[in-house]
Amino acid sequence: MSNLISTTARGPVGVLGGMGPLATADFFRKLVEATPAHRDQDHVPIIIYSVPEHPNLVDALTNNGPSPLPAILRGLGILKRADVQLIVMPCNTVHSWYSEIQDGIDVPVLHIVDAVRDDLLETPVLPERVGLLATEPTLRARIYQDRLAACGIDFVVNPIAEREEFVLKAIKLVKQGHPNQAGLLLECAIQSLLNVGVQSVILACTELPVALASINSRFLDLCIDPTLALARATVAWSLTRPE
Amino acid sequence: MSNLISTTARGPVGVLGGMGPLATADFFRKLVEATPAHRDQDHVPIIIYSVPEHPNLVDALTNNGPSPLPAILRGLGILKRADVQLIVMPCNTVHSWYSEIQDGIDVPVLHIVDAVRDDLLETPVLPERVGLLATEPTLRARIYQDRLAACGIDFVVNPIAEREEFVLKAIKLVKQGHPNQAGLLLECAIQSLLNVGVQSVILACTELPVALASINSRFLDLCIDPTLALARATVAWSLTRPE
Repeated sequence: MSNLISTTARGPVGVLGGMGPLATADFFRKLVEATPAHRDQDHVPIIIYSVPEHPNLVDALTNNGPSPLPAILRGLGILKRADVQLIVMPCNTVHSWYSEIQDGIDVPVLHIVDAVRDDLLETPVLPERVGLLATEPTLRARIYQDRLAACGIDFVVNPIAEREEFVLKAIKLVKQGHPNQAGLLLECAIQSLLNVGVQSVILACTELPVALASINSRFLDLCIDPTLALARATVAWSLTRPE
Repeated sequence: MSNLISTTARGPVGVLGGMGPLATADFFRKLVEATPAHRDQDHVPIIIYSVPEHPNLVDALTNNGPSPLPAILRGLGILKRADVQLIVMPCNTVHSWYSEIQDGIDVPVLHIVDAVRDDLLETPVLPERVGLLATEPTLRARIYQDRLAACGIDFVVNPIAEREEFVLKAIKLVKQGHPNQAGLLLECAIQSLLNVGVQSVILACTELPVALASINSRFLDLCIDPTLALARATVAWSLTRPE
């Protein structure tokens, strides 16, 4: 694709979205707001595939449903034909299939946890004890724990009863269009983590920042938002001329 | 594209976006929020092309720059190859080229003013005197005035000095990432329209609802938001089984 008058250095970014759609919209807005722009043409060129025909990710990862990989690879194929130069996925759980996804397309796929790591490494003092709010498969697959192992962070999760009552219910409520109710539940989960001494909380499911923002939560400042980190990393990639 | 488990009745919607990107993101969020959904798979399948390589629309319409039509048709071609079944354009000014765009692709293009008309016709009492905030070419092309002629509405616009000071500056500020400042300017334009007796105001540039929402303007309730109307019309199309 010719990039007639755009000031960004690279070709379009492909967004594999729809997991869920509101989280994808949240990513898009954060991407636009994170871009230094004076006019339309300064913005990151992106093509967003938000076709939520994939089987439920959590069901698949708990052996209760079919794999979403065929639907994901179909989406990647459509983005590839549109000549995208980078893939981003504003969903944490889907990163359980990161290797298969990267193997399925010959353009780089930016890992959401690498984006979080880059943000963390720019903070003056790394937090030592961090809460992790996520779906059960994201916790079990150790997506954050393993990829951030070098940061020496002690990860804390809520007890299972709190995860079910607060976190998993909140994720479902956002997907159903009730982010306010979800935000109130999440605040309970975060308060519980603060009670055991975490300094920061990673909102490791892209539905969660939407929920907290919708109630303008007092906890937002101490949370790490992987959607925002992914947006920043995408802008940084787009503005960097390839070597 | 097979639509494995989606409950929507139609194939994907193509969004020709990037005019500007923040307005496109605003449309996406409104689309998701306007959709009755219990899970990801209930949402409207969409593919968003937000590659802002098009020359400035207003410059083109005032004979001060090249036509954006080649860039627009390139975007439509990419959406068509992704097998979209409907095109929507969350930008009012681009509808100056509506005929050429509809001629350039063999899937229907939903006109933003038709979406506003459908919303208006559902109100208990049609407003008689309505303010129109838009770019100069949108006003001059009579996109709203002609397409809503049957509604018998008396359209009022601000004097040229107010349009330049308040409306055009506000649009530019949103594109530069300053929606709050833009919102304050817009409130001046709306107050002036209220002073001459309008009952309602059409925010006929998709940057404008973003600006007013960002300051949670007291005028939002009396405004008609074409972005929201387009989102609702898109959801309605997607949920209706083809005959």
